[in-house]
Amino acid sequence: MPKLDILNLQSLGKDGILDVMHLAQKNKFDRCAFLETKCLKDKKVAIIMEKPSLRTRTSFECACVDLGAYPVLLCDKNSAFSRGESDYDTIKVLERFVDAVILRTYEQSKLKALSEYVSIPIINALSDDFHPCQGLADLLTIIEHKGDPYNLTMCYIGDASNNMCNTYVELACIMGIHLNIACPKNFGPSTKMLDFIKSSPNSSFVQIFDDPKLAIKDADVVFTDTWVSMGDEEKSTEIIKYFDGFCVDMELFNLAKTNAIFMHCLPAHRGLEVSDEVMDCERSVIFDEAENRLHAQTALLQLVFEKSLF
Amino acid sequence: MPKLDILNLQSLGKDGILDVMHLAQKNKFDRCAFLETKCLKDKKVAIIMEKPSLRTRTSFECACVDLGAYPVLLCDKNSAFSRGESDYDTIKVLERFVDAVILRTYEQSKLKALSEYVSIPIINALSDDFHPCQGLADLLTIIEHKGDPYNLTMCYIGDASNNMCNTYVELACIMGIHLNIACPKNFGPSTKMLDFIKSSPNSSFVQIFDDPKLAIKDADVVFTDTWVSMGDEEKSTEIIKYFDGFCVDMELFNLAKTNAIFMHCLPAHRGLEVSDEVMDCERSVIFDEAENRLHAQTALLQLVFEKSLF
Amino acid sequence: MPKLDILNLQSLGKDGILDVMHLAQKNKFDRCAFLETKCLKDKKVAIIMEKPSLRTRTSFECACVDLGAYPVLLCDKNSAFSRGESDYDTIKVLERFVDAVILRTYEQSKLKALSEYVSIPIINALSDDFHPCQGLADLLTIIEHKGDPYNLTMCYIGDASNNMCNTYVELACIMGIHLNIACPKNFGPSTKMLDFIKSSPNSSFVQIFDDPKLAIKDADVVFTDTWVSMGDEEKSTEIIKYFDGFCVDMELFNLAKTNAIFMHCLPAHRGLEVSDEVMDCERSVIFDEAENRLHAQTALLQLVFEKSLF
Repeated sequence: MPKLDILNLQSLGKDGILDVMHLAQKNKFDRCAFLETKCLKDKKVAIIMEKPSLRTRTSFECACVDLGAYPVLLCDKNSAFSRGESDYDTIKVLERFVDAVILRTYEQSKLKALSEYVSIPIINALSDDFHPCQGLADLLTIIEHKGDPYNLTMCYIGDASNNMCNTYVELACIMGIHLNIACPKNFGPSTKMLDFIKSSPNSSFVQIFDDPKLAIKDADVVFTDTWVSMGDEEKSTEIIKYFDGFCVDMELFNLAKTNAIFMHCLPAHRGLEVSDEVMDCERSVIFDEAENRLHAQTALLQLVFEKSLF
Repeated sequence: MPKLDILNLQSLGKDGILDVMHLAQKNKFDRCAFLETKCLKDKKVAIIMEKPSLRTRTSFECACVDLGAYPVLLCDKNSAFSRGESDYDTIKVLERFVDAVILRTYEQSKLKALSEYVSIPIINALSDDFHPCQGLADLLTIIEHKGDPYNLTMCYIGDASNNMCNTYVELACIMGIHLNIACPKNFGPSTKMLDFIKSSPNSSFVQIFDDPKLAIKDADVVFTDTWVSMGDEEKSTEIIKYFDGFCVDMELFNLAKTNAIFMHCLPAHRGLEVSDEVMDCERSVIFDEAENRLHAQTALLQLVFEKSLF
Repeated sequence: MPKLDILNLQSLGKDGILDVMHLAQKNKFDRCAFLETKCLKDKKVAIIMEKPSLRTRTSFECACVDLGAYPVLLCDKNSAFSRGESDYDTIKVLERFVDAVILRTYEQSKLKALSEYVSIPIINALSDDFHPCQGLADLLTIIEHKGDPYNLTMCYIGDASNNMCNTYVELACIMGIHLNIACPKNFGPSTKMLDFIKSSPNSSFVQIFDDPKLAIKDADVVFTDTWVSMGDEEKSTEIIKYFDGFCVDMELFNLAKTNAIFMHCLPAHRGLEVSDEVMDCERSVIFDEAENRLHAQTALLQLVFEKSLF
């Protein structure tokens, strides 16, 4: 039985990403008709969160319900893996009860290993390396607010070594969308991601800056993300000092195009990576972006089940 | 879009409370027909419990399911608010995923603030100040057991500064039902509630006693509640000594009318605010009262959605 | 109203166990038709786990959903009992909200007491003494892989004082299936279980050995289970030394019949009670056994509701 695991955006490729966009827009446009279809009726989907999650859990839970599937929530610290049983045994058992697994975990390698053990699809709901679902929601939001993305310039300001920036790099290289990255010296993309860019036919679409003011010039879309990733909270004071000048405040945001939109995957640390003024301004589309988690993931689940089980 | 938030019983007013009673009785009377309607089909309702909850969570969860809505349970300590994100950002995101929020929290002011941020209705599932859902279940139970409530005398014995007594005071003043309160000196109603009583056209319906024997005389309905509210457990020994003589034991309960009923919102501390004998006697209706949480809240949800979204 | 509580396999008896087998096989054989019936539509079932649980919780949750019932999950440590309220009050309230309770707890006596307080059925999802649901899944697996169980020899190797071995003893005595038990001296069946065997007309079907090599000879089915029960993890080093020679490794397993199957209720401690080689060999049916939790429990729930409520 073929199956489609979503380990990152590369798992989807350009065609897959476009399929998700079309499906998400269609379902959103005629939501009543979509809610009638319940195309995953009698399916069960495990949602396993090894890190705390509000947005991802709730949006996937609602996506499952909208599709007619039942979400099996395994979100307590000790509810799924790491209970003394081997990961192999755990996933081989879950495979017998559910039809797909949505997993938020740490190592990308764990996702890959689990996906190889079982015949049910595994979806990455955030790992140390990638956050493909957020990337899909973001592209959907960009298309809604700015139309055709191919002539746009996206600008990411902040920690370029994290899973969100990696995902934007994937988006840029797979889709062929301009991406300017501004990051402090020690917070650039990993060697792995630099290699990924180099090996892409669209490598010229990605440019890395150390000055946010240069990177944001002419941007249509401005993203940032927390400077302190989940789990690193203890080192936050130390980390923050590297990011002097990287806060997306109104002064910096005004250097982008006049109709540029501001995006943030949330949760935001208001006053650190972004000012209240930018978060709450008219061109901030952060809550549309959050809502699109639901629509993008609903479409993603449909696609995954279509390609995997039918 | 208009919406109906339920911050306390005043949010409903007399007409709203009567609407809930009628609807609850109708649904309960013809439960099979009611279960067929699934009038909140495809709706999603977040149930956020910032304090532990068994009765409220389970009854609201079941109420949602009976109505055809999907309950999104956010009951872990760190699952919704207080995860470092602003309450504003959290509720603005949830608004995009769910159609209503049921919230158990501490400060009444937080409920009010959240309700103003969003266009979806917010329902108070217990705060430091009020417990309107319990109030509705209690009125339903009184009507079922004693009929027309307007000629009855309710008597609350215990800590008159807590959310339950506040809710009974609202019930008395809004509906015009006699309420005798018996409480120790330092456990009387707050200034705010005393002002509420004074400003009510039904202020004469509420009488405050320091002698439980006087208060309970001629009562048709006797309530009590824990002397030690959730979170104050450490101070319990100190608190308990103020309540000498306030335990609703059979000797005290026998001073009420011979057909008086005993009610308790539960959990009860048997042997403290109430004796085993009273809890387990024939005139104790505590489990009917608990069941009516389900029926009252089902009706409340219907009303809230009718007034808010359709 | 009559009701059927499942406190252990004796609650079902031979006829009940056979009913569960037939129903499970039928539902499994024509799963699509079964999923259409939703014969527990509008029912609610509380799943209360006082000990951590992955398999039991997930399989019961999915079983409820497959049947059309809504599972009310009360799996946090403090979500149901032991919150300061009497067990009696808690279960009497739950009785008003749900139609059945599935409970994983410690003392068998608690299950019995709770079942006597209420008119809704209670199902044991593992106690200190019994694990009837696992027993049903195991019998179903045996029948699937080996056919008619009456001429088979089952062999349990390990701690014979635990709930799994007790359940296999019940299975042997109730059904009349041969069971060889191999256990270290201090880990034999309890006096209570020895009395149960003695009083059974099938007492001759159970034989107890101290040498696993003798017990496993001619076995068609080999079970083991953890040597260290949940809660005893601190004493594990001390306990393990008693089990020298009891690890089901390939050398020992090869003493059974050549077509013998290996079973384990999981989670397994690979390298302790069983070797990787046996766990992962072709004759290991551990994941079929895990899947059968779902099918056996679905059938069990059907039977319980049929005998209790209709």
